[in-house]
Amino acid sequence: MKHIFLSLQYDGTNYSGWQRQPNVVTIQGLIEEALFKITGHAAALSGAGRTDAGVHALGQTASFFTGSRLTPDTVQKALNALLPGDIRVCSAVYVSDDFHCRFSARRKRYFYVILNDSPASPFIYRYAWQVKHALDIAAMQQAAMSLVGRYDFKSFCASDTDVDNTVREVLGITIEAQSSIAFMNAEIKGKFITITIEADGFLRHMVRNITGTLVDVGRGKTCAEDIEYILNAKDRKKAGMTAPGRGLFLEKVYY
Amino acid sequence: MKHIFLSLQYDGTNYSGWQRQPNVVTIQGLIEEALFKITGHAAALSGAGRTDAGVHALGQTASFFTGSRLTPDTVQKALNALLPGDIRVCSAVYVSDDFHCRFSARRKRYFYVILNDSPASPFIYRYAWQVKHALDIAAMQQAAMSLVGRYDFKSFCASDTDVDNTVREVLGITIEAQSSIAFMNAEIKGKFITITIEADGFLRHMVRNITGTLVDVGRGKTCAEDIEYILNAKDRKKAGMTAPGRGLFLEKVYY
Repeated sequence: MKHIFLSLQYDGTNYSGWQRQPNVVTIQGLIEEALFKITGHAAALSGAGRTDAGVHALGQTASFFTGSRLTPDTVQKALNALLPGDIRVCSAVYVSDDFHCRFSARRKRYFYVILNDSPASPFIYRYAWQVKHALDIAAMQQAAMSLVGRYDFKSFCASDTDVDNTVREVLGITIEAQSSIAFMNAEIKGKFITITIEADGFLRHMVRNITGTLVDVGRGKTCAEDIEYILNAKDRKKAGMTAPGRGLFLEKVYY
Repeated sequence: MKHIFLSLQYDGTNYSGWQRQPNVVTIQGLIEEALFKITGHAAALSGAGRTDAGVHALGQTASFFTGSRLTPDTVQKALNALLPGDIRVCSAVYVSDDFHCRFSARRKRYFYVILNDSPASPFIYRYAWQVKHALDIAAMQQAAMSLVGRYDFKSFCASDTDVDNTVREVLGITIEAQSSIAFMNAEIKGKFITITIEADGFLRHMVRNITGTLVDVGRGKTCAEDIEYILNAKDRKKAGMTAPGRGLFLEKVYY
């Protein structure tokens, strides 16, 4: 058996997330179906992270075992020929049998894009959360500092998950404002706010719940000092709303 | 009656072009339906150009007459509330009755994006034509020079149109190569070629037919010197293929 590692990009707009589920179209499901056609056998694809519905990836990774003698290069070309244009395999290589996309990862980076109080653009509405309230970026930055470190992030974890250990180490959070983004050879003007979070691992909805809470701080609904209290409460109900999936990108998985 | 002028942006991916037609979803059709809900009367929307299926706009314009007392600002907000997120009204103002979006236009600019022999990205496949053959940009630039000026562009006009006068003045064509494009706060690497064309007016499929012909030159299928012969032939069959709609953007209409 050979073990093949894929790096992937996708636009999550049209999918019910990464994870294969009955009756809905998912990214893992489509790739597994394509692998079945290519290799002639069922292959279980193991991904680095289960992105939610609507979430995008610039650097998702996944791997599978196969008895087929097809080279990684052939697998990449065949997958790109079979998959829809919004899911692309950027590279495929052999990896050792004991490599695991999720457990071997040292850290991951996500970013979240907010379009603050600007006319929406038809070209970025799939990729940003439009927040109309004025946001105080300095307050958001101050609040974010309280989340950097090794903490129990239970307050920021979806309540319907069954993980035992909700302790994660957040290595850094940066919050940046931009007055425009480049789109093809034009510029889309707007007040963009990007939140980038790097951690040794992420809980379900963690980036989206942190984003929702930081937006509450930016609006003045929550003060920056409350973040510590929210963390200590270990109670999902104390944190802010879950920001929509469409603004979130899995940027990179580090091994 | 008041005359209201709209500037519009849209992602054309999901639409059968600008022009209202029975049984298909078009941009003009959706805006007219929304205007009916807002003003309470049927309003004929007159646009600057009839973009084809899949073609995008960063600077489309359109106008309509209304007996309603709603201000342009209210019309803009109401349209944006009713229209899907991939069609946006960027501004709305009153204009004089004798203004006409198409006939008052002095010139228009379109650009066309080609992704040449690079791994496709899930984030730009809606906005570029992927051409796998190596393209000689210098030859394309040389060929383009023969198209700048006042000529009968019948060879580059869709054969099923009934316009009498196929003479247009092309004011400039620029062909530029880029090694990446910015996407949100990431970069998409690839060999991008952008063709920008400005003219006093455009015939049906004119930019797409010029692009298809310039790609034939870039591939070496046609030589740069043949362009003059193709122009003089005044025969659609002499020019190259119609490039797909998805790479084309109506950038700006000048008044």
